[in-house]
Amino acid sequence: MLRVGIVGVSGYTGVELARILSCHPKVEITVATSRRYEGQHLSRVFPNLKGCIDITCENPSRGDLCDKADFFFTAVPHSTAMTIVPPLLEKGKKVVDLSADFRIRDVSVYEEWYQKHTSSDLINEAVYGLPELYRDKISRAELVANPGCYPTSVILGLAPLLKSRVIDPATIIIDSKSGTSGAGRSESIATLYCEVADGFRPYKVGGTHRHIPEMEQELSLLNGEAVTISFTPHLLPVSRGILSTVYARLKEDMDDLQLQKLYQDTYQDEHFVRLCSPETPPSTQHVRGSNFCDIGFSVDRRTGRLIIVSAIDNIVKGAAGQAVQNMNLMHGFDETEGLRGTPFFP
Amino acid sequence: MLRVGIVGVSGYTGVELARILSCHPKVEITVATSRRYEGQHLSRVFPNLKGCIDITCENPSRGDLCDKADFFFTAVPHSTAMTIVPPLLEKGKKVVDLSADFRIRDVSVYEEWYQKHTSSDLINEAVYGLPELYRDKISRAELVANPGCYPTSVILGLAPLLKSRVIDPATIIIDSKSGTSGAGRSESIATLYCEVADGFRPYKVGGTHRHIPEMEQELSLLNGEAVTISFTPHLLPVSRGILSTVYARLKEDMDDLQLQKLYQDTYQDEHFVRLCSPETPPSTQHVRGSNFCDIGFSVDRRTGRLIIVSAIDNIVKGAAGQAVQNMNLMHGFDETEGLRGTPFFP
Amino acid sequence: MLRVGIVGVSGYTGVELARILSCHPKVEITVATSRRYEGQHLSRVFPNLKGCIDITCENPSRGDLCDKADFFFTAVPHSTAMTIVPPLLEKGKKVVDLSADFRIRDVSVYEEWYQKHTSSDLINEAVYGLPELYRDKISRAELVANPGCYPTSVILGLAPLLKSRVIDPATIIIDSKSGTSGAGRSESIATLYCEVADGFRPYKVGGTHRHIPEMEQELSLLNGEAVTISFTPHLLPVSRGILSTVYARLKEDMDDLQLQKLYQDTYQDEHFVRLCSPETPPSTQHVRGSNFCDIGFSVDRRTGRLIIVSAIDNIVKGAAGQAVQNMNLMHGFDETEGLRGTPFFP
Amino acid sequence: MLRVGIVGVSGYTGVELARILSCHPKVEITVATSRRYEGQHLSRVFPNLKGCIDITCENPSRGDLCDKADFFFTAVPHSTAMTIVPPLLEKGKKVVDLSADFRIRDVSVYEEWYQKHTSSDLINEAVYGLPELYRDKISRAELVANPGCYPTSVILGLAPLLKSRVIDPATIIIDSKSGTSGAGRSESIATLYCEVADGFRPYKVGGTHRHIPEMEQELSLLNGEAVTISFTPHLLPVSRGILSTVYARLKEDMDDLQLQKLYQDTYQDEHFVRLCSPETPPSTQHVRGSNFCDIGFSVDRRTGRLIIVSAIDNIVKGAAGQAVQNMNLMHGFDETEGLRGTPFFP
Repeated sequence: MLRVGIVGVSGYTGVELARILSCHPKVEITVATSRRYEGQHLSRVFPNLKGCIDITCENPSRGDLCDKADFFFTAVPHSTAMTIVPPLLEKGKKVVDLSADFRIRDVSVYEEWYQKHTSSDLINEAVYGLPELYRDKISRAELVANPGCYPTSVILGLAPLLKSRVIDPATIIIDSKSGTSGAGRSESIATLYCEVADGFRPYKVGGTHRHIPEMEQELSLLNGEAVTISFTPHLLPVSRGILSTVYARLKEDMDDLQLQKLYQDTYQDEHFVRLCSPETPPSTQHVRGSNFCDIGFSVDRRTGRLIIVSAIDNIVKGAAGQAVQNMNLMHGFDETEGLRGTPFFP
Repeated sequence: MLRVGIVGVSGYTGVELARILSCHPKVEITVATSRRYEGQHLSRVFPNLKGCIDITCENPSRGDLCDKADFFFTAVPHSTAMTIVPPLLEKGKKVVDLSADFRIRDVSVYEEWYQKHTSSDLINEAVYGLPELYRDKISRAELVANPGCYPTSVILGLAPLLKSRVIDPATIIIDSKSGTSGAGRSESIATLYCEVADGFRPYKVGGTHRHIPEMEQELSLLNGEAVTISFTPHLLPVSRGILSTVYARLKEDMDDLQLQKLYQDTYQDEHFVRLCSPETPPSTQHVRGSNFCDIGFSVDRRTGRLIIVSAIDNIVKGAAGQAVQNMNLMHGFDETEGLRGTPFFP
Repeated sequence: MLRVGIVGVSGYTGVELARILSCHPKVEITVATSRRYEGQHLSRVFPNLKGCIDITCENPSRGDLCDKADFFFTAVPHSTAMTIVPPLLEKGKKVVDLSADFRIRDVSVYEEWYQKHTSSDLINEAVYGLPELYRDKISRAELVANPGCYPTSVILGLAPLLKSRVIDPATIIIDSKSGTSGAGRSESIATLYCEVADGFRPYKVGGTHRHIPEMEQELSLLNGEAVTISFTPHLLPVSRGILSTVYARLKEDMDDLQLQKLYQDTYQDEHFVRLCSPETPPSTQHVRGSNFCDIGFSVDRRTGRLIIVSAIDNIVKGAAGQAVQNMNLMHGFDETEGLRGTPFFP
Repeated sequence: MLRVGIVGVSGYTGVELARILSCHPKVEITVATSRRYEGQHLSRVFPNLKGCIDITCENPSRGDLCDKADFFFTAVPHSTAMTIVPPLLEKGKKVVDLSADFRIRDVSVYEEWYQKHTSSDLINEAVYGLPELYRDKISRAELVANPGCYPTSVILGLAPLLKSRVIDPATIIIDSKSGTSGAGRSESIATLYCEVADGFRPYKVGGTHRHIPEMEQELSLLNGEAVTISFTPHLLPVSRGILSTVYARLKEDMDDLQLQKLYQDTYQDEHFVRLCSPETPPSTQHVRGSNFCDIGFSVDRRTGRLIIVSAIDNIVKGAAGQAVQNMNLMHGFDETEGLRGTPFFP
């Protein structure tokens, strides 16, 4: 059994890591850290875990932390991660970091959108943890930067098109909608039930969301030249789920079969990507609780635009599930181990 | 007291008309028709109306219908409306029709997107019922075609820009999200609670929604030349509310103040349009239950794109409320009569 | 115009007071206090109010507060209210206090369930603000203690039965369910969207909720002897609404007509109480946004138990609406002024 | 691999059976029947199942049905079940029937609450499928009558108390709240999103719900003498979950430890029953997607009443999950096989 640790278990990503790992046949959670809940049994904090996991929240020193597991998931805010990860790596531990700290390869871009980076030497060692793009590198990595939730849905939706250069990258517009778990589990008026329920709103309108440089980095790599996107996130009155609607203009006319073939060629061996027919476009309620990314597309013949729709569960494929998928690759487990659950509906 | 009739009271638009009119100080509902609920007191069908309105659903012949009121709201499906409206007009009644039958001025376009039109002679008489654009014509109209819910949110959001020709109309992309009441109140699996709750999905992806020709007609009139749009609707797990996120490229650089002035110049005297600052973009929960349309915008300086966001309550400003606003104009009442309620939150 | 003040405008009761009063034709809000939002326009805090109310949040000293209005609503936590209300009364202002501080007539009971009372002399002056029971006293009161949300739904449901002594008071069991706005608008993890949505839970099980002594006081007065109740509150994943299901044994057999007559005799002249037939029991979605209390009952002939169901909007009839109803009485306005809106559905 | 069939796959119980069985390592779904969706791939009907199950809906004759599997789940309406089950049993197949047709041992009681029974001879063969009570009998059964959703939550909550006869059975009052999936997946206005969302209502008030005789049968068997209950169901705006709040008077005073011991003695070896401390009473969001039944209790010392709270996922432990638990027992699999998933939160 691989001894795994969850650093920062008190958030929605933390509890989801605990849920998934508690059903993973080849790992054992040996440490779960939380300052807020230090000394409390994890199933008291999250009663869904009762009877499924037997662990008490700890708040160990960084030195002690290293010894408590052999593989770590760091689910802490950016800027905290860059101080927690280095000592773990030094001790020879493998780490999947779920923050933004090691996702951006160009430190100046990171520092423009986030803040000063104090472990920039590690950025080059980190592998961007999107297995559908970087499977081999992830298998050999010591440190994986788990992708953001929005970028996961967007990059998987656009990858086949950009790789084959069939769309004009200057025309990409991304309209994304996220469930409220994406806003985290901290005390806040803006995410109280009464502020979110029965409503819908955009936020960070005008190209200011921090996932933009992450998406542009990966989309540019796929396309072979710089991609600049318009991206607008919205807050959905659901707990889980991201749906991205992406618009782009086809460079030249293609029929549906040609496009379908592009997607099939890219994803036919991918367990976690499901292609949808135009009659049943992706919807968040059909991926809920699973590591699937559902992708569909339609061409608007009137305007020559392609509309790509992709849906994930933001705390599974958009966070904890993808992190476990990365762990499976890094440790040589079957990539789908612990992640084969069928999505639940309704 | 003006004697008003609601034809087709059993849907969500019908009950909302009843709600608004029951509080309108200058009208009296004298007939409410429903085949399904004929003979039942309306407050049995919609218990919210108990004690607020005293009327029994009827199913009169078309001849009898005319005599029962002096002003009619026809809230019936398209293709039904075109058979019900003509006899009412012939008897000298005024009508606000909430279907699509009299919105499209070019009958060939109507027939391409809907079906054969059997009262096409009336199309020219009908005035498109968006008071912020056509107030004077509406005041003199016998027949008003009440706008669709999506078009209301989109046209109001784009009007100042198209009138002043500051955006490139070929770049307009509209990503709209609607509450489930927009799907109507008929027996259907697709809109059962369990199919919609805790989920989100697009529909009619690829430019096939019937509100497209309606929007293009009005946007083209505003712009002075043909506008072709990309439009993707989505289904929100809320009862009420539409939020449209609209993308377009500025023809030339403008600063925020210039844009703000455009909007203020257009809407400063409009009671039902509220402009939002970039820090607080529109959200559906802040217009709920009201006839307001909230509009905000941001410029994405990185891409030169303008993002316009507009929010309405789809069954008020998007249907019943706007219909009453039109009635007020057509009958010479104060335009805001019966519509001055403050939106409720939460 | 009566100059009214809202002390504590930042909570859900505060914004609802602002909403209702903004549509009240005979009052003007001249002061709204909030420590958190001091100096901010109220419509920035609650964008639903934009264009409907023009006031900036203040945080005046207690001395200054008195001069800013002639009638006050104090929507502050208990224990704060007892320090804010006395100086207002001394200056001759009338007050509706929405906290628990002046609801319990027996100060020792208050101190057992809450904390030390520092203005106990005012308790005797305060009138319990349930107009359906105490209309005359309220009309003459300087200080009205606005009832709790649960007590409003429960007392109105049981009053006809207890006054006529047809049920055994020792058998009363109250199972209540409240929307989340009842939990207030403060930063808290327990009422985050993701903690409440798609779930349901009881709280304060075992007879420990502070509304119990308030209910027992009023039920005992109605019954003429001490009543002890079992009361269990639950948290509903809705923003607004309380539904109470109350069980009690009939002292002797009564048929439905006799019971119906009891309710009709009590409530036939009450504008805000609507009696429901057994086929359409009360539901929260039919009182939403209104000051109505819907009441229904059924006899379980198998067990001889009567089941009473009552539904209110917890922040209208359960708080802000009832407070305005009390103001109307205290100031000699029509009791329904500003409160005649039809509930909205859906 | 056991070849299993799902008869009636188009409802919420059907899709949940498919979900659970698709992850069960020892079975293979060899037939799934649906009249409505005959000829359609199941993953087209329920896109959540895409990539997880490969089967097409069939509508075989009753004769053909028998050959298509060796174990059957019949998820069809009552009265249909009694005609489908007998031929399966005659062919030596084992059946878990999820309808009410074989739950009531006294055919006259069945016929009083439902309708004429045409296979009453099978009632004696059927075992009531609550493993926590009837594990041994279920292991040897050919036909198991899977319990109703409400009864499962109520019987498990009350069993320890009735077996030890510590409560007065004449005082039992059950106030239950169910998610909307319990209302089924048929076209209906009453369960449309807009009718249910943001609301709450009771139904079948007055002791008329058909689960009453089922509960009384089992509670009476536990108690050793006839038990008559008051039961009121309510409709929650959630998809999944039942929470029952049960009230009963203790025959004599007991302290919390004694009561706790009663529960622990009964359930300490039960994998799917989790006991909750008074500080964290059961909530539906903590059992979602799992086969757990969470039970808690509190004594109201003021009234001498015990309040028991139990929560299940109505379509797992209340239907499909319990059916699979029964299959595991009937076929000699580990009882928890396929059912060990951790509940997801949020």
